[in-house]
Amino acid sequence: MPKKKRPSVMDQIESNAQDVYDKILKRKKPTMSTPVRSLANVKYHPKKGHFEMLGKTKERTLTVGTVKTFAQTLKMMALSKELIESNDMATKREAYYISKNWGKAGFAEKPESDRIMDDVEAMFGVNRELLKFVPEAKGGDTAGNLMVIDTDSRGKKLKIDCTKFGSGAYSIPTDVESLGFQSKAKFILAIETAGMFQRLVKYDYWRKKGCILISMGGVPTRACRRFIRRLSDKLKIPVYAFVDGDPYGYFNIYRTLKVGSGNAAHLNEFFCVPKVSFLGVTPQDIIDYKLPTHPLKEVDIKRAKDALKNDPFVKHHKRWQASINQMLKMGVRVEQQAFAKHGLDFVVNKYLPAKMRNTAKFLP
Amino acid sequence: MPKKKRPSVMDQIESNAQDVYDKILKRKKPTMSTPVRSLANVKYHPKKGHFEMLGKTKERTLTVGTVKTFAQTLKMMALSKELIESNDMATKREAYYISKNWGKAGFAEKPESDRIMDDVEAMFGVNRELLKFVPEAKGGDTAGNLMVIDTDSRGKKLKIDCTKFGSGAYSIPTDVESLGFQSKAKFILAIETAGMFQRLVKYDYWRKKGCILISMGGVPTRACRRFIRRLSDKLKIPVYAFVDGDPYGYFNIYRTLKVGSGNAAHLNEFFCVPKVSFLGVTPQDIIDYKLPTHPLKEVDIKRAKDALKNDPFVKHHKRWQASINQMLKMGVRVEQQAFAKHGLDFVVNKYLPAKMRNTAKFLP
Repeated sequence: MPKKKRPSVMDQIESNAQDVYDKILKRKKPTMSTPVRSLANVKYHPKKGHFEMLGKTKERTLTVGTVKTFAQTLKMMALSKELIESNDMATKREAYYISKNWGKAGFAEKPESDRIMDDVEAMFGVNRELLKFVPEAKGGDTAGNLMVIDTDSRGKKLKIDCTKFGSGAYSIPTDVESLGFQSKAKFILAIETAGMFQRLVKYDYWRKKGCILISMGGVPTRACRRFIRRLSDKLKIPVYAFVDGDPYGYFNIYRTLKVGSGNAAHLNEFFCVPKVSFLGVTPQDIIDYKLPTHPLKEVDIKRAKDALKNDPFVKHHKRWQASINQMLKMGVRVEQQAFAKHGLDFVVNKYLPAKMRNTAKFLP
Repeated sequence: MPKKKRPSVMDQIESNAQDVYDKILKRKKPTMSTPVRSLANVKYHPKKGHFEMLGKTKERTLTVGTVKTFAQTLKMMALSKELIESNDMATKREAYYISKNWGKAGFAEKPESDRIMDDVEAMFGVNRELLKFVPEAKGGDTAGNLMVIDTDSRGKKLKIDCTKFGSGAYSIPTDVESLGFQSKAKFILAIETAGMFQRLVKYDYWRKKGCILISMGGVPTRACRRFIRRLSDKLKIPVYAFVDGDPYGYFNIYRTLKVGSGNAAHLNEFFCVPKVSFLGVTPQDIIDYKLPTHPLKEVDIKRAKDALKNDPFVKHHKRWQASINQMLKMGVRVEQQAFAKHGLDFVVNKYLPAKMRNTAKFLP
């Protein structure tokens, strides 16, 4: 969502295009400016809770050399305007194919098209969904104490009751911007694997504890992260993450969910969930619950050491550093299904209740 | 689902275990027999519509050398019995961790545990879900004219109306065996990408045409294939596949959906959808609709040539051979989003209606 008082995307597109047009009429070289999208242009903002862009921008001035990308950027802006006006949307891949009708401005390869779309997104400082460019990938299922408010394709209001899916779930759509929510849930539990999600659904966890369960299915998609973020903003209840106890779970999943990632810093503001905290599985859980483990792989060790050295989030949080060092010392990783060793119901009847008695102790 | 008059899984487990027990009491060596699971033990059965196992079996006799796998197989059978009795389920990963309590019969690595589970599945000639072993991965969303009947965890009957999800969808659970269906849909459309699924939902395709849309999200998971198969059996309406026009779409997705795969022949009977036919995208569509393409990659060419030479399904169907040869000659592949070149609504308003006027012409 754009911050208050920010001009609408539509206004921004029009005023940008107007600038270019006016300059051309004055026989001046038109310019467009986009923030530099890289880790070098990023800092961790603990208070805001996400990676944030520093001020570096790159200018694209219309010259013989830039004429093609300049035209492509304008065409991409025009496409966005069209989509907003017609209440339609396009995936990145569709946008690429649409460009096949742009004559010489057509993209030769999809990565070119993706790059220009990222530029446009960063230029307007909004998330792509507001430009009506939606992700290819779906991702994320939810079940529990949540009513999702949507409209059908004929504009009729729909209330989707996520307590009524039995063994199934509500599949989060690619574009979640216009969804509304009603809920009396006490917390949101974001789960790494579909298997664990299915276990908690089977054992009625959401009903017993009055919560919303979300299956991220590995690294959460944009749609899934934005969905959790919007729930968190709207419902003002805690979000807890329950993922595998390995560097992939800690950084690729949890860190991305919480503060975002380096190479997409221009949109972390919209996609991160600063209020999430880490329920488990922690290295200490391995000891406390005598869990079966696997040895750390070389890639795990490399990832953990990299994080200690370079990840602004980890460098900010001493408790994470301690946990990562503990994991490296133990030399093992653990999967969230490991609790099954103590019986299939152990995770629901013992582990989660024990953890939930002391949420203040969760890793940040 | 087991065939009629086949003994229940529970009965089979008990009689198998009884055999072993009786032989031991008589001081004879107990034996268990499982079908050989490999392409060499498979033939394509065009009438039944799937790859079928030939008769080869392997015997596992209790000896000093086999004592561990023998014990593991029995423990796995016992776990299945326990799960059936308690109306519970376990993922493959959970079963692996449960084995950590089996003393010396515990599995050292997950692949061992998976192999024994596959053996037990093949031994009883049923799909794993009936043994209450469920997949890790979810997969598959659906929207459209379908009512799914499920029960909640307290045994209360639920009707899930898949016309009421707005931009979202019903996420297919990992275990679909006990779901019921009601529908007046005219056909089922199984779609490769989430992006295209979202497009058809957005443009209200299922309402306009009275159909059920299924997003497979790439190669369909077991749960997704079984769901489509059960829909196909129950509703007796045609199933059409709409996937990318490349060897991956033709073989890894469509062929697997239709007749199954070689290395899992013991369960194709339950998971394949013999009634599906191929809507597109075909190599001929590239010409007919002037679609933008990509050159075939080396791996595409290899896969296509392999299929012509070795795939029993392709070798059976001359029309598939012709299409694959046409693709190889053209040297290009096409994505299902390529229709966007002619406008975002082209696929819904032109391509699909034109195709649906002549479904008899679909590739088999």
